[in-house]
Amino acid sequence: MLIDVLPSAGSPWMPDLRNKIAIVIDVFRATSTMVTAFSNGCQAIIPVLTTEEALEKRINQPWCLLGGERRALPIEGFDVGNSPFDYITEKVKGKTIVMTTTNGTRAIHAVAKAQKVWIASFLNADSIVDAIDRYIKDNSEVNGIVIICAGSEDRFDIPDTLCAGMLVDMLGKDIEVNDLGRAAQMLYNISKSNLEEALKMTEHGRLLQSIGYEKDVKYCSQSNILQITPILEDGQIICK
Amino acid sequence: MLIDVLPSAGSPWMPDLRNKIAIVIDVFRATSTMVTAFSNGCQAIIPVLTTEEALEKRINQPWCLLGGERRALPIEGFDVGNSPFDYITEKVKGKTIVMTTTNGTRAIHAVAKAQKVWIASFLNADSIVDAIDRYIKDNSEVNGIVIICAGSEDRFDIPDTLCAGMLVDMLGKDIEVNDLGRAAQMLYNISKSNLEEALKMTEHGRLLQSIGYEKDVKYCSQSNILQITPILEDGQIICK
Repeated sequence: MLIDVLPSAGSPWMPDLRNKIAIVIDVFRATSTMVTAFSNGCQAIIPVLTTEEALEKRINQPWCLLGGERRALPIEGFDVGNSPFDYITEKVKGKTIVMTTTNGTRAIHAVAKAQKVWIASFLNADSIVDAIDRYIKDNSEVNGIVIICAGSEDRFDIPDTLCAGMLVDMLGKDIEVNDLGRAAQMLYNISKSNLEEALKMTEHGRLLQSIGYEKDVKYCSQSNILQITPILEDGQIICK
Repeated sequence: MLIDVLPSAGSPWMPDLRNKIAIVIDVFRATSTMVTAFSNGCQAIIPVLTTEEALEKRINQPWCLLGGERRALPIEGFDVGNSPFDYITEKVKGKTIVMTTTNGTRAIHAVAKAQKVWIASFLNADSIVDAIDRYIKDNSEVNGIVIICAGSEDRFDIPDTLCAGMLVDMLGKDIEVNDLGRAAQMLYNISKSNLEEALKMTEHGRLLQSIGYEKDVKYCSQSNILQITPILEDGQIICK
């Protein structure tokens, strides 16, 4: 099984996605937040690329919540931001959320044509690996896994790369990985003893701390605390 | 001093290059080969993007040699390929070489607008760092360094990233680096005890070994053996 890790939502190179499954990672914070929302009972998340598209969606589906960020801050007129702490049970239980973020929702769109797309973060890494192991056993046509790191405004980002490295590490030994996948695994292995500290020192980690989201950084660096496996189906993310 | 490392020639993100100096790395093999060519007396290298452009250049400058590769192999009708072993004194001394390679010459063009552009590889890393230290002391307006890894067909590539990590490491402690620069430095520090082995295991290293260029892989993984500091000036690379 070949694993290709891509560095950012706008990766100039994209493998052929036929017979491939994809994993999207945006540790700070879109995928960590989505996983949290499902853990708190959210019914579906519709990832869109622009705020205009989000506002339009609500015209036809006025029961939806709008969520997301621009420059890491909540969007005016939206119901929730991009902090996992916004997505509490009282707000999101049973709800459909239309979400747009700078990097995460773009990364989801970039791999939407894969046979199956999972939403991963440190919070649910082991559940995602279990779900993929099962899926591959039942679907022998699958010949590769693409892990896309959302990155940060088209730039390589250590938090997502470390999470990709964790997934590569957990997906086992019977795999071949591209250079970025192998680098990610090496970086994860030298950082895993103190992930929170490693994430705090990154560009995105420092940005979030500087605008008052220290709690988010700490929360998103926790591994395997939520047994949640969101997947993309017909343009919306659900969790069976 | 801020150092930004970019993952590939086609990086979707490019910092503002004003008042910045740039370093181009293509370990396998364009920059290693250029450094070797200058060490063997080559007078100038003109980096071009296409084979057609190279052939056209020779119409007006028939004394030029043509060099480069496509899919890691020599180009039909060209005088030299992309192996450093092609660029021996008997062939290149006193010559101007028009060169086109898949990644390296594209990376040079991507940062050509920087205030100064150096050509680096493991072979000449310490000389480049010395030259940059001197240049920055004499040019106080310089406010950043951009290190562009050529990568491999728009993909992240471990060899170039390790060399970027070595440069970041050598450029000292009074610096701020982006996430990729810091990751590169970490990767370099866990690989430096056996760089040859680390490079052999990479995607590009394995490709070169599979088509008979084992010697090139071994050669390009040697650190600081050539005191050569090529720079880009008016569209051509020279070595003062």
